[in-house]
Amino acid sequence: MRITIIGSGNVATHLAAALKNAGHKIVQVYSPNYQNASLLAYHVGADAISDFSAINGANTDLFIMSVKDDAIADACQKLAIHQKIIAHTSGATALLPGVNMGVFYPLQTFSKTKELDFSQVPLCIEGSDDQTTETLEQLAHTVSKNVYRVSSDQRKILHLAAVFACNFPNALYAVAQGLLAEYQLDFNMLRPLILETAEKVQQNLPATVQTGPAVRRDEKTMQYHLNLLNHRPELQDIYRSLSQQIIKMDNALKGDE
Amino acid sequence: MRITIIGSGNVATHLAAALKNAGHKIVQVYSPNYQNASLLAYHVGADAISDFSAINGANTDLFIMSVKDDAIADACQKLAIHQKIIAHTSGATALLPGVNMGVFYPLQTFSKTKELDFSQVPLCIEGSDDQTTETLEQLAHTVSKNVYRVSSDQRKILHLAAVFACNFPNALYAVAQGLLAEYQLDFNMLRPLILETAEKVQQNLPATVQTGPAVRRDEKTMQYHLNLLNHRPELQDIYRSLSQQIIKMDNALKGDE
Repeated sequence: MRITIIGSGNVATHLAAALKNAGHKIVQVYSPNYQNASLLAYHVGADAISDFSAINGANTDLFIMSVKDDAIADACQKLAIHQKIIAHTSGATALLPGVNMGVFYPLQTFSKTKELDFSQVPLCIEGSDDQTTETLEQLAHTVSKNVYRVSSDQRKILHLAAVFACNFPNALYAVAQGLLAEYQLDFNMLRPLILETAEKVQQNLPATVQTGPAVRRDEKTMQYHLNLLNHRPELQDIYRSLSQQIIKMDNALKGDE
Repeated sequence: MRITIIGSGNVATHLAAALKNAGHKIVQVYSPNYQNASLLAYHVGADAISDFSAINGANTDLFIMSVKDDAIADACQKLAIHQKIIAHTSGATALLPGVNMGVFYPLQTFSKTKELDFSQVPLCIEGSDDQTTETLEQLAHTVSKNVYRVSSDQRKILHLAAVFACNFPNALYAVAQGLLAEYQLDFNMLRPLILETAEKVQQNLPATVQTGPAVRRDEKTMQYHLNLLNHRPELQDIYRSLSQQIIKMDNALKGDE
């Protein structure tokens, strides 16, 4: 397919590279910042543009819009005149009204500096009509083994769940790193544990492999930990609420609720 | 070395196997449950015992005690008559008083059903005297590349940090899985994201790779997520406190505090 990329952020960068590697033609990369557009365009053999009026709608089959959530509606309105498929990549934004509208949402965390295997990235597809959905689904299969049809309502839940499964665990890694630093301990000591914890749930359901003082109802250790955090009341709150959540989920798992 | 294993849980199982693979002789495995002792003893070519008086102190150099925290002091007292090194494997328990006392704490989460590369497991060593410390440290180097001397005070912080880096992220994975299940969505969709989040911090400090609505100060999305959780006030509390923590850490990173 001939594809135009609107945006030059982390998602646009990884997606454009994966699409090019799969044999598609990236025709243009648009970013309001010409330097950003150029950098990505160069990598994927496309033309860089920073002016919306320079978009060549006749020479493309599909616009992939990877811009900030609050810029999606406006960009979409400007692109509609070209009468091609317009797909956004946002987890939090509903399918836009109109014809030829779609969603191409990669459920992954991307950094420009870290390579990753795109074929494992789950792609969530939605379209305003069957033909759009099928076109996007076929395109998705060319770059990933994990393609799902997901409604806007389901996608909002996925996006929320991703905050719990990615953003919040990373915040807790940062809390742990800060505690170690306070006592001159090396974060390398925790890195294998973090990785193993994530690897464990690749085969198991998380509730079934929960470990630690809360799931053991080890009140003595929990109280001791809370005492260690006396100087950090905000971390005591997090410790208490997550420990309560662990006990609640464990009770549910055991059928006590 | 000739090593006696007291206990037959996850830590005892992985540690005994790693020690045997490194060429040490596991002489006896003790568990009050004879069947558990037998199972582990069989795997490591040792004798199984379920009676403390059957422990052959003359035929061992070292007791590794991997029992519940509140059973450590009692077991240690019974073993002291043999006048050999006694090392416990607990993150939350201080070095025991007395001579030949040690700590051999593997900072990892173990499941009996999941293999893992023990050479990557950080081992935290402490001894009541230099000779004990050195003996345990040399032993540790035979099974792991990551050996650290860690005081009891530091170890307590490590144990607390491990709750934040392992137990709590796993609880959040379980929360995410539960949200997906409520909407008939497959947990497989989140597994690559969970793994990538943990892999990202193997090279980076977590605060520097934080993503999501909180670090972007995207109030609209956060409010939307809180609305989606109206039926789960306990998850709203967790969402709010972790989002506040992300903003606080990001401000600290940027030097605004």
